Amino acid sequence: MRIIVTGANGFIGRKLVAALLQAGSLPGPDGTPVPLSDVRLFDVVAPEVPAALANGTVPVRSIAGDLSDPAALDRLMTGGADVVFHLAAVVSAQAEEDFGLGMRVNFDATRALLDATRTAAPDGAARLVFTSSVAVFGGDLPHVVRDDTAPVPQSSYGVQKAMSELLVQDYARRGFVDGRTVRLPTIVVRPGPPNKAASTFASSIIREPLNGESAICPVPEDTGLFVASPRCIVANLLHAASVPAARFGHGRTVMLPGLSVTVAEMIEALRAEAGAEAVARIRFEDDARIRAIVASWPARFQTDRAAALGFQADASFAAIVRAFVEDEMGVPNQE
Amino acid sequence: MRIIVTGANGFIGRKLVAALLQAGSLPGPDGTPVPLSDVRLFDVVAPEVPAALANGTVPVRSIAGDLSDPAALDRLMTGGADVVFHLAAVVSAQAEEDFGLGMRVNFDATRALLDATRTAAPDGAARLVFTSSVAVFGGDLPHVVRDDTAPVPQSSYGVQKAMSELLVQDYARRGFVDGRTVRLPTIVVRPGPPNKAASTFASSIIREPLNGESAICPVPEDTGLFVASPRCIVANLLHAASVPAARFGHGRTVMLPGLSVTVAEMIEALRAEAGAEAVARIRFEDDARIRAIVASWPARFQTDRAAALGFQADASFAAIVRAFVEDEMGVPNQE
Ligand SMILES: NC(=O)c1ccc[n+]([C@@H]2O[C@H](COP(=O)([O-])OP(=O)(O)OC[C@H]3O[C@@H](n4cnc5c(N)ncnc54)[C@H](O)[C@@H]3O)[C@@H](O)[C@H]2O)c1
Ligand SMILES: NC(=O)c1ccc[n+]([C@@H]2O[C@H](COP(=O)([O-])OP(=O)(O)OC[C@H]3O[C@@H](n4cnc5c(N)ncnc54)[C@H](O)[C@@H]3O)[C@@H](O)[C@H]2O)c1
Repeated sequence: MRIIVTGANGFIGRKLVAALLQAGSLPGPDGTPVPLSDVRLFDVVAPEVPAALANGTVPVRSIAGDLSDPAALDRLMTGGADVVFHLAAVVSAQAEEDFGLGMRVNFDATRALLDATRTAAPDGAARLVFTSSVAVFGGDLPHVVRDDTAPVPQSSYGVQKAMSELLVQDYARRGFVDGRTVRLPTIVVRPGPPNKAASTFASSIIREPLNGESAICPVPEDTGLFVASPRCIVANLLHAASVPAARFGHGRTVMLPGLSVTVAEMIEALRAEAGAEAVARIRFEDDARIRAIVASWPARFQTDRAAALGFQADASFAAIVRAFVEDEMGVPNQE
Repeated sequence: MRIIVTGANGFIGRKLVAALLQAGSLPGPDGTPVPLSDVRLFDVVAPEVPAALANGTVPVRSIAGDLSDPAALDRLMTGGADVVFHLAAVVSAQAEEDFGLGMRVNFDATRALLDATRTAAPDGAARLVFTSSVAVFGGDLPHVVRDDTAPVPQSSYGVQKAMSELLVQDYARRGFVDGRTVRLPTIVVRPGPPNKAASTFASSIIREPLNGESAICPVPEDTGLFVASPRCIVANLLHAASVPAARFGHGRTVMLPGLSVTVAEMIEALRAEAGAEAVARIRFEDDARIRAIVASWPARFQTDRAAALGFQADASFAAIVRAFVEDEMGVPNQE
């Protein structure tokens, strides 16, 4: 099984690669696990191969390049591919700031990757998992976003993701590439320092108190979010590569399951895990700009399609907090 | 007011150009009519300027070229533009047969036209009316398609139109081009001979009997269609160029109003207009392939958004038949 991961240096990319190498195999077209024979990690800077796993049993190659550069894409595709995880993207704020860059990386490079995958596997059997986002939704949304709710993106990032979803749909329908799109919920709890994303507080208000540090919450307690843990996302990405093509029916886009939680509920889960002391480290400091952005995100989804296709959700927000503690704070899984 | 019409040689293009030249003006940004100062008609073959109207009062230029050819696009844009009607497209069957051609003309050329329009009017004030289609819809559709129903196209044509809609949306949101997309219902009654489109019977069963000829209906009487007359479409295209930008709100795509009719209702309207003799010229001859294609098209739409924005629908199918008789059979309007 030849695997390609684009954006392998990213937050999700690293976790996906670790999970892939740990598993050592991926289900083939008939569902039985096929050992990984060739794993190619691609990113702007050559991705590091996880030391503990690069033990020689699975050949891993690290390739540096810009996906929007045809020569780099050629290098990446040499050797063919059975499964492509396409995570490379410029983030929302960057795509909004630099329209040309966003179009080139988020859309044109996705198209080029689909074409290259088709060329590498002319029988159309190569599977490609594309990571889209709830950012395709915007404008006047219903209270609950459903699988058949129309995307009306309010960002260039959302438009570029939505256009790429349509390409994946057509390449799959025509039998060019066995593409599958998953729309990801907001991912919490992210490790590391806060970043510039409007959603960064959602990780901060859990992560910082757990680390004995203070955190600022810029939105009211009743703010709703639709979230999933990194663990859950990685499991669902692997699952997306394994669902038999026929089960998708007429469409190749799936909104992944998540949890609809309020900030208050997130804080209650923190209290249960780490006590009142941890909760006391959160300070509410209203930020009108962030409040407006976050309020524009859909917080409730009905993800029937994902459930029918066997994708999974986190059990509870408490479980998300516990998974973060286990995965990122060195506390072993006690279950 | 400088106007560009791409696809000016097409069925709708010709009618739109005639209506434009007849009006001699188009509402400017503040709603007051501005005389046409420069009309450019673009198509693969140089569009003919309607003789009766090319009386010199409105300067009309006819330009031949392939919209996907940058040099041709340059020629077209010379002189700038205030309003662009973008109708050029390869039809559904062609886009399905030749994927590369469809992508190049229906998507890449739309993108290039948007970029060229942005360059020609850097203040973002140029209006661009893009003609999309109900072909963006497909798969497991609800009984009534609404403005917020997600497109899941089942053709490359539908995908290319849906991707172009998203571009128009983003160019408008960013203030690059004041774009507006209208999704057209099936247009009946088309003049001329039957063509290869699966929908051709919908015009044939009215047109041929009115002309004293026989027609074949390949689908059952209870087959539903969502239709509009050419007259109505042209009026709505002109209206699309005139709606103040602010009224679109968060989205730039509008499904145009139409009539939900069954074949039986269409035939009743023919009977009222032309008698039992005309109806007797229709022979039902089931064609499983056409029946399946037509059955996959959504036949019921709730077009609240279009109504709120002032777009109009035909009064009845009888009115559509009468408009055809008046416009295409030389019978003067008696109202
Ligand atoms: N994290 C989330 O909450 C979230 C939510 C929805 C969707 N997504 C999507 O999931 C995917 C992965 O997200 P992430 O959080 O790991 O993002 P990330 O920013 O951490 O990783 C993206 C990676 O892509 C790489 N990249 C960017 N441009 C590239 C180019 N031209 N060529 C090669 N590599 C390039 C970056 O260097 C980076 O390592 C992205 O497509 C993202 O849009 C993420
Ligand atoms: N007629 C309908 O029922 C219907 C329904 C939905 C949408 N539409 C859309 O409305 C628009 C007009 O439809 P129509 O019925 O007049 O179609 P048409 O096929 O009669 O006209 C399209 C015109 O575009 C021209 N064209 C094609 N490729 C070109 C290129 N590369 N460069 C320049 N010109 C090119 C063709 O020569 C043709 O004259 C199209 O965009 C079509 O997709 C039509």
